[in-house]
Amino acid sequence: MLPFQHIISIDKESKTAVYRQIAVSIIAAIRKGILKPGSHLPGTRELSKALEVHRKTVIAAYDELYTQDWINIIPRKYTVVADKIPILRPQQWNDEDPVSSYENSFNLPFRIIDEKTEKIHTTPPPEVIIDDGHPDVRLSPIDELLKTYRSYTSKRHSIKYANIGTEQGTLRLRQELALYLSETRGLNIRAENILITHGAQMSIYLAAQLILGPGSNIIVGSPNYPAANIAFEQTGAILTEVPVDENGIDTEAIEIICRKTKINAVYVIPHHHYPTTVTLSAARRMKLQELSATYSFAIIEDDYDYDYHYTSSPYLPLAGSSHHGNIIYIGSFSKILDPSLRIGFMIAPENFIDQCTALRKIIDVGGDGYMQNALAFLIKEGELKRHIKKAKKIYHQRRDFLDTLLEDKLGHYLSYTCPSGGMAFWVKLSPEYPVHRLLEIPQLKILRTDEKSNAFRFGFASMDEKELEKIVDFLKAAFDRF
Amino acid sequence: MLPFQHIISIDKESKTAVYRQIAVSIIAAIRKGILKPGSHLPGTRELSKALEVHRKTVIAAYDELYTQDWINIIPRKYTVVADKIPILRPQQWNDEDPVSSYENSFNLPFRIIDEKTEKIHTTPPPEVIIDDGHPDVRLSPIDELLKTYRSYTSKRHSIKYANIGTEQGTLRLRQELALYLSETRGLNIRAENILITHGAQMSIYLAAQLILGPGSNIIVGSPNYPAANIAFEQTGAILTEVPVDENGIDTEAIEIICRKTKINAVYVIPHHHYPTTVTLSAARRMKLQELSATYSFAIIEDDYDYDYHYTSSPYLPLAGSSHHGNIIYIGSFSKILDPSLRIGFMIAPENFIDQCTALRKIIDVGGDGYMQNALAFLIKEGELKRHIKKAKKIYHQRRDFLDTLLEDKLGHYLSYTCPSGGMAFWVKLSPEYPVHRLLEIPQLKILRTDEKSNAFRFGFASMDEKELEKIVDFLKAAFDRF
Repeated sequence: MLPFQHIISIDKESKTAVYRQIAVSIIAAIRKGILKPGSHLPGTRELSKALEVHRKTVIAAYDELYTQDWINIIPRKYTVVADKIPILRPQQWNDEDPVSSYENSFNLPFRIIDEKTEKIHTTPPPEVIIDDGHPDVRLSPIDELLKTYRSYTSKRHSIKYANIGTEQGTLRLRQELALYLSETRGLNIRAENILITHGAQMSIYLAAQLILGPGSNIIVGSPNYPAANIAFEQTGAILTEVPVDENGIDTEAIEIICRKTKINAVYVIPHHHYPTTVTLSAARRMKLQELSATYSFAIIEDDYDYDYHYTSSPYLPLAGSSHHGNIIYIGSFSKILDPSLRIGFMIAPENFIDQCTALRKIIDVGGDGYMQNALAFLIKEGELKRHIKKAKKIYHQRRDFLDTLLEDKLGHYLSYTCPSGGMAFWVKLSPEYPVHRLLEIPQLKILRTDEKSNAFRFGFASMDEKELEKIVDFLKAAFDRF
Repeated sequence: MLPFQHIISIDKESKTAVYRQIAVSIIAAIRKGILKPGSHLPGTRELSKALEVHRKTVIAAYDELYTQDWINIIPRKYTVVADKIPILRPQQWNDEDPVSSYENSFNLPFRIIDEKTEKIHTTPPPEVIIDDGHPDVRLSPIDELLKTYRSYTSKRHSIKYANIGTEQGTLRLRQELALYLSETRGLNIRAENILITHGAQMSIYLAAQLILGPGSNIIVGSPNYPAANIAFEQTGAILTEVPVDENGIDTEAIEIICRKTKINAVYVIPHHHYPTTVTLSAARRMKLQELSATYSFAIIEDDYDYDYHYTSSPYLPLAGSSHHGNIIYIGSFSKILDPSLRIGFMIAPENFIDQCTALRKIIDVGGDGYMQNALAFLIKEGELKRHIKKAKKIYHQRRDFLDTLLEDKLGHYLSYTCPSGGMAFWVKLSPEYPVHRLLEIPQLKILRTDEKSNAFRFGFASMDEKELEKIVDFLKAAFDRF
């Protein structure tokens, strides 16, 4: 017998199961010609002894090799390297040994998008996560969604071509959404005005790519949703910041800029502005629309957080009022159902949607048509509305609960305005407690902090009362150690 | 009673269910103030008579209105417009009636991506579809995938933050994929070398955005995968075409160009080139790699169709040989499982993957983490390999069957080389039968035709023997009418 203990290397600390390590080692040996076609492998008892592993592990490794066609097993007789491994042994076209060329760096010129790509490693996850306004996925009707998904894919005979022509999103979802947005947001639109995207971010990216470019100008709030700013900057456009106060983005400041500079677009988050949670006032909405008509700029209305209002009603979108078609309206289901479900939308005139669809097709062809149709069904059956109704009630309670907690336990360290809706508080720390020190705590991960305002987003919707209390206590202990 | 037959408009031809039309009309009337809070609605019997619809339809409409909080139902007594519709009756911030501003065109300057956005309407679908090489989704283990998906989402307590930090793809999928690609393609990579994308197209788009720009040069085959060309053109790069013959892209021609012009990248499809189905020869692979080292250009290796080989073994990827890290390797699961499942990957050095991930985050944040982990499980359990093994056998039979059919029934009209693998034939029509005339047949949709070569892609994998025969007969009848 070949010295298998040398051919097969096992690392018991590795995350890869031992049986797979054995299989991979044997494959490598076959590839290198150390084990020739037809040559016998040791019996499982023998090999398990040589390798000092359980016999079942060797059996599992052999099963894996058999499934992959590397070996033939003649039960109770012997095990041999397969004679013919037609597909899984691809042809080498040179004489090299396997190499790890990807340990090299890519060393030709390429665009740097982000100098300091921070990696959030999910294993092990930090003990305490404060998100920036996530839904509680435990409440979501995802199981309903997947049931429908499965029922669609099981009818595969009839939907063999489910994905053809769905770059814009499936017609079924767009039709349902047109009705739904009419009923809930007063938007008067047709399926042709809708592009289904992978979420609000993709809608922002597409709009930015189409209306901005080097030398064009866009106005954004200060502070603003950072990922939107990055999408705008990528086009080469110049970003001009105007203040956001308790009534939303400052439209007077926008007017002053428009008088001097040709502005191509204004980006607004009308409900529960990110990160500050303020809502754009009625007066400013009217002003903004006037300015858009006078100075011919597009409005990118990112209404990602329309659905959750607790103490006041939402305003109808700017997009639902009378305008010249230059409002690009953006929404998302990821914030309602689950951030892992990547479905959002863009509403715009058909000529604009057509070009966004053309660009979208270049970027990633299209979305998951089954999932889109399953979502359409969820909307049609009223399941989405029922979910929102239920979640709203629970989030309302959680908001009130966190409001009390923050006041009682952390009032000394921070201040905030209780948000009228949405899924997060915008919490400002007292100057003695700089927010960057929170980031130094290894067990804690806060998804959105802002050093300039010495503030962070405290997402409350994703946590129940117990979890909220635990986090507040954790923060209190941290502050006390400052 | 108000004249409800005038308030409620029903179009029985509409695709919207009648009960929803009734509900929408009543909502509109409430919104407009025609129906005031507290005002009584007619009984279901009465209204069904006035509207000439079944009483159950009215009950369904009222249920819908009740679910949405527009009305209160006091069973067996009366139905009234709700007093307080806190959320679903949003505030108007001006006095306008609902308008359809989106019938306007977007009339500010914006980038035109595609002059002639052709819309493939899926309803009604064309009678006969010839795809360009789709898998047969009826064979795919999608149900296994969704079962796992559901089991993950049902453990929502533990995976509340499944989506955090997964811009690059979930660690679990990247680890499985690193092993899988090592076993099946001899790639020596780590999870850090992998970016999970929405498919091969997104990998192409990201690579193009990072390494190309106005004035840079890329070499592509002629003919080439059109969606790749469009992605390259979008960056402002100059595309130079070199011929593709029976041995793949002409590396001599590439060398001649490199001597004169600084080339930034070469795009190759090494297996079953799209559209021609040829495979890049071993000699040309070596030559290409030499040229890449000599002239410092990146190779974008789009190996979308590695898995299905019938009469010859695949070559190991260029990416698996010894190189300086300047090969960007692209693959996809959409072609193996289902084009609706949008999962693909890019392999590159870590510094390049980091920047691609940064751009990807701007474009659409990330993919569906549950689905990625479900796919990881499918790979780990060997289910993916089993599927490929099974599908390969069936596709092989279908290829041989279509080969015979084409020769017997259509030999007079066209010629082709039987492909050694993949999912499509590249069929060249005789000059008397111009391919554009096939496009004029209303019942027929061919996904990829090429007028220059007077050819089209005949995807065979998605169709069983009966379906293939039907299509060939359809084509024969069409040619005979030419």
